[in-house]
Amino acid sequence: MRLAELSERSGVSTATIKYYLREGLLPPGERLTATKAEYGEEHLRRLRLVRALIQVGRMPVATAREVLKAAEDESLSQHLRLGAAIWALPHGPGPEQGTPETARAREQADALLERLGWAAHDRKTETPSPAYRMLVEAIASLARLGYPHDTGHLLPYARLVSELAVHELDVVQTYDTPGEQIEASVALTVLYEPVLLSLRRLAQAEESVHRFDEA
Amino acid sequence: MRLAELSERSGVSTATIKYYLREGLLPPGERLTATKAEYGEEHLRRLRLVRALIQVGRMPVATAREVLKAAEDESLSQHLRLGAAIWALPHGPGPEQGTPETARAREQADALLERLGWAAHDRKTETPSPAYRMLVEAIASLARLGYPHDTGHLLPYARLVSELAVHELDVVQTYDTPGEQIEASVALTVLYEPVLLSLRRLAQAEESVHRFDEA
Repeated sequence: MRLAELSERSGVSTATIKYYLREGLLPPGERLTATKAEYGEEHLRRLRLVRALIQVGRMPVATAREVLKAAEDESLSQHLRLGAAIWALPHGPGPEQGTPETARAREQADALLERLGWAAHDRKTETPSPAYRMLVEAIASLARLGYPHDTGHLLPYARLVSELAVHELDVVQTYDTPGEQIEASVALTVLYEPVLLSLRRLAQAEESVHRFDEA
Repeated sequence: MRLAELSERSGVSTATIKYYLREGLLPPGERLTATKAEYGEEHLRRLRLVRALIQVGRMPVATAREVLKAAEDESLSQHLRLGAAIWALPHGPGPEQGTPETARAREQADALLERLGWAAHDRKTETPSPAYRMLVEAIASLARLGYPHDTGHLLPYARLVSELAVHELDVVQTYDTPGEQIEASVALTVLYEPVLLSLRRLAQAEESVHRFDEA
């Protein structure tokens, strides 16, 4: 398809598509003439992912490019890329280096991951992932403000997201090709975050009302 | 205790505490002289909550004040306030009004809540909660970008956060007074969000690596 059709089918303006092409978020189309190129279904799919990252995930363009780079990293096996791309997704600000709470929070995060038997991916990389740093910072905030944050309090969250990950990867595997699976995996990780957070609040409000109305 | 001690014990500067007092985020202390006031444990507790909302939840001061107002709403029963405060927590931007996806997403959110038997609190209020609007917008984004978003895909998330809410309210009920329970409930809702999101990404990366390494 040509640029105009890609724009119509994706709902993204031609100006924005050209910007994504210049920024390397979208691979170039097959050049037909000096000014015309042909785009395929893979461009349409990639555009949906880019919009998920930038519009819903509110990532800066540079960050979205990092995530897409991880998804395409040829040095990793096709299948490891899937984990690597989720791994590279951005997070809130990193831990405040060097506070006593941060050092302690790192120990607690490690103890939790050890207990869960996770960190399969971590052992293959030199630097901690954004997700790991986000966990450390979250534990440090809880500690700093005097709220419960021991392994016993963290485990229920870990167990539930483990169950969820099985369901989520089942959904990812309904996509046909490895390339589509990686893109869907990253997009669904980002797009289902607000689903998870909003339902959690609704569930809490519901549970509060039931529990205390009946008390 | 006096302002200096409140500052020392909370780790919040006296200038910031004075700002919170002026903005109504912190109730005034008991006035001793024209320039001196006495503060209690409730001020210390409230300061922790305010920091959770503003520093971790990244809420503007005006929004934090709204949440605290809901927690203190005398028109609600002591226990209903707990649900109301979580209810008032802010969210991403509201749904894009009037798009076909939004109307359809609202129907889907209602069908989901109906199926779950939730909305106990919703029926008591005139306006939809921020959490409800966040859910609608999340479903609309999934629809707009062509990713799965039917009730079958949303239910696993709802079921897991229901289980989590039971655990979370158990933690809240370890606090002694209704006032402390409300404050802990709001603070823990905000502070455990990054725990949940970071663990979800770690769990997904873990599940990806296991599943595809063994494939």
